[in-house]
Amino acid sequence: MPHKQPPGRPIPDIVVGRLPFYLRTLRSLAAEGLEITSSSELGDRLGLTSAQIRKDLSYFGEFGKQGLGYNISFLIVQLRRILKVDRIWEVVLVGAGDLGRAIANYHGFHDRGFEIRFVFDSDPAKVRQSLSQYTIQDIASLVEKVRAAKIRVAMLAVPAAAAQNVSDLLVEAGVQAILNYAPTSLVVPKGVYVQNIDPGAHMQRMTFYLEA
Amino acid sequence: MPHKQPPGRPIPDIVVGRLPFYLRTLRSLAAEGLEITSSSELGDRLGLTSAQIRKDLSYFGEFGKQGLGYNISFLIVQLRRILKVDRIWEVVLVGAGDLGRAIANYHGFHDRGFEIRFVFDSDPAKVRQSLSQYTIQDIASLVEKVRAAKIRVAMLAVPAAAAQNVSDLLVEAGVQAILNYAPTSLVVPKGVYVQNIDPGAHMQRMTFYLEA
Repeated sequence: MPHKQPPGRPIPDIVVGRLPFYLRTLRSLAAEGLEITSSSELGDRLGLTSAQIRKDLSYFGEFGKQGLGYNISFLIVQLRRILKVDRIWEVVLVGAGDLGRAIANYHGFHDRGFEIRFVFDSDPAKVRQSLSQYTIQDIASLVEKVRAAKIRVAMLAVPAAAAQNVSDLLVEAGVQAILNYAPTSLVVPKGVYVQNIDPGAHMQRMTFYLEA
Repeated sequence: MPHKQPPGRPIPDIVVGRLPFYLRTLRSLAAEGLEITSSSELGDRLGLTSAQIRKDLSYFGEFGKQGLGYNISFLIVQLRRILKVDRIWEVVLVGAGDLGRAIANYHGFHDRGFEIRFVFDSDPAKVRQSLSQYTIQDIASLVEKVRAAKIRVAMLAVPAAAAQNVSDLLVEAGVQAILNYAPTSLVVPKGVYVQNIDPGAHMQRMTFYLEA
């Protein structure tokens, strides 16, 4: 979901939003054994024009040589640095329902720069139960534990009605980036970033284009 | 994820992508009992400027009167029509793992214009088992059943390695819109729309803005 652009940054957020997909695709190409790629190959994989890809990457420097294409492993290193995932960010997951369970069981985050450190829920029947390799913690201890661990990234998988309250707790604890799965908009202070995952919204974005 | 813009359409896809969030917010306001809203109230809820909201909505007509704000229920009707969710789209879900289970158990789709009709999986241990109110079907029957039911929208919740093959089956069956949860880009023919839900990518879009 769009958010207000931080002042003074010249790079459009929409460009920033495409970089993770470039990185993901470059890693796939590397996994296939390729060493060099081109903006047109990346474009074919991503459903974008090669001009778009060249323009997006040009915000960050010169990554390819005319006619020689991009060195894949070099560009991966650069994109990981630009996106600040050349390190591992600890993440707090709030919500141990069906979706929280799927998230906790998913093993693809570490490769992308993230590692779930804590899982919280407010349901007494879930607190102290196991979920994947985690013990579900009482949300009453969230602020204290997240602050002590200096965690800055959260995934929010709670019902819509609870989301704003939990978001407030996360912000109080020092979280600056919230991946919001609850189908409601969060109001957060300046300097806190929210991305919304809402399958209903993403499908509506496509039905717009379909003939009724 | 961005996709190539259909030719001749003057409305930027980024604007289309915001409309579902406007609709979602308007429905929240209506549920709170409000009848009238303003671009600045919508902006505060959505983390956007009021100018952005007025500009986005102006692509589709005149929805508010200067100084009088927007009639919420009127704007809801208009946005549902514009997004073509003033009807119910049947959806096929492929993948009955943890994530597919969370999706099948989620009851928020109908309100947004979608209803899961079939759930498919390729795992013989899952086929013919129950999942929520569905019986998991063998993926071998996907093309035939989806085509017969004229289903045009799909949710893809399979591992990355299987996603392109399943996407090809969906396209063969007549699907035109794919919500892709697999962390890989799909190559689809022109006229087929893909939106990617990738929590790793969405978090990387935020860490870009954080101080390392």
